[in-house]
Amino acid sequence: MSEIEFWFDFGSGYAYFASLEIDAVARRHGRIVRWRPFMLGTAFKVTGATGLSRTPLKKDYALRDWQRIARLRGAPFSLPPHHPPIALAATRACYAVERDDPAAVGPLVHALFKAYYADGVDIGVADEVVGVAARLGHDPAALAAAIASPELKSQTKTMSESAVERGVFGSPWMFVDGEPFWGWDRLGMLDDWLARGGW
Amino acid sequence: MSEIEFWFDFGSGYAYFASLEIDAVARRHGRIVRWRPFMLGTAFKVTGATGLSRTPLKKDYALRDWQRIARLRGAPFSLPPHHPPIALAATRACYAVERDDPAAVGPLVHALFKAYYADGVDIGVADEVVGVAARLGHDPAALAAAIASPELKSQTKTMSESAVERGVFGSPWMFVDGEPFWGWDRLGMLDDWLARGGW
Repeated sequence: MSEIEFWFDFGSGYAYFASLEIDAVARRHGRIVRWRPFMLGTAFKVTGATGLSRTPLKKDYALRDWQRIARLRGAPFSLPPHHPPIALAATRACYAVERDDPAAVGPLVHALFKAYYADGVDIGVADEVVGVAARLGHDPAALAAAIASPELKSQTKTMSESAVERGVFGSPWMFVDGEPFWGWDRLGMLDDWLARGGW
Repeated sequence: MSEIEFWFDFGSGYAYFASLEIDAVARRHGRIVRWRPFMLGTAFKVTGATGLSRTPLKKDYALRDWQRIARLRGAPFSLPPHHPPIALAATRACYAVERDDPAAVGPLVHALFKAYYADGVDIGVADEVVGVAARLGHDPAALAAAIASPELKSQTKTMSESAVERGVFGSPWMFVDGEPFWGWDRLGMLDDWLARGGW
């Protein structure tokens, strides 16, 4: 089945909101979502950008905008005081799970996003990530070991670098058949692109 | 009549595309567009950002995205080789014209955008700006003098600073009744906001 690649950093509020909508977009067009968490900081090293929540003016707009999107979509949203998280453990957990069961990644991504943006769980902490995964039935000891393993550290680094090599510099970032779409606010255009087969 | 404030830098491709649509949005809601050109560099000093066309990765995406938007909207678009322009003269010309005839600003903005993004005229050059305005019936000598005057230099600086004080850091940027919307891709949300009276 054809894919929608969904690249994102767990620390991105816009990625959270897009994660709530991308499954429906994929379903409408008979595609599956390929979840591709990565460390946005890898791209920032190339673009010179800083995170939204660390940038004057942008952070105030982003917070207001996230609350506006949450009201618009009826989505739970409560930004933790420790925002933004360092999403290394959460990212590694997704690739660890994908190795054994690719279909289990989506539910884990949704659970991690919900834990952070709705329930205030600090998914920057590996133990919390393991806890979220355990409630979905994943083996906590095995996952904790995987998160700390050289293989997963290396894979996360490689994925982040490969994203940047393909031009990804923001989150969320979607590819359909190689065509790039940056941002929550491009979901409508992505939907249109799939419906029309591009233009 | 109520307004839509439309803040923009003439050097912003996304502002060009938004300028092609904002009049229709305003008309639908019985509003007028208040054209507010400013120097985006004033905001960059606060956010630490650089222009899209000077930023690795972002510049490639932006060029591809502008061409995609142009095809989608059937809008003429041909990025001049000297992009981005320094929009000081064009910005000052708008405020000079506004002083005498506020209703004449919109047509001048559209003409300057078209000159640059469709016809390859370098509106970073004051003489070219005056030429575009002259074809709309403005007095070239008076406008050239106004562009070079301390009053217009000062007003442009003040407008740019006031934009940043109100949180503006990108282009295009719209305010409706104090509510901020950043980006061409938020025109739909802005339209929705006006239709529903906010949410």
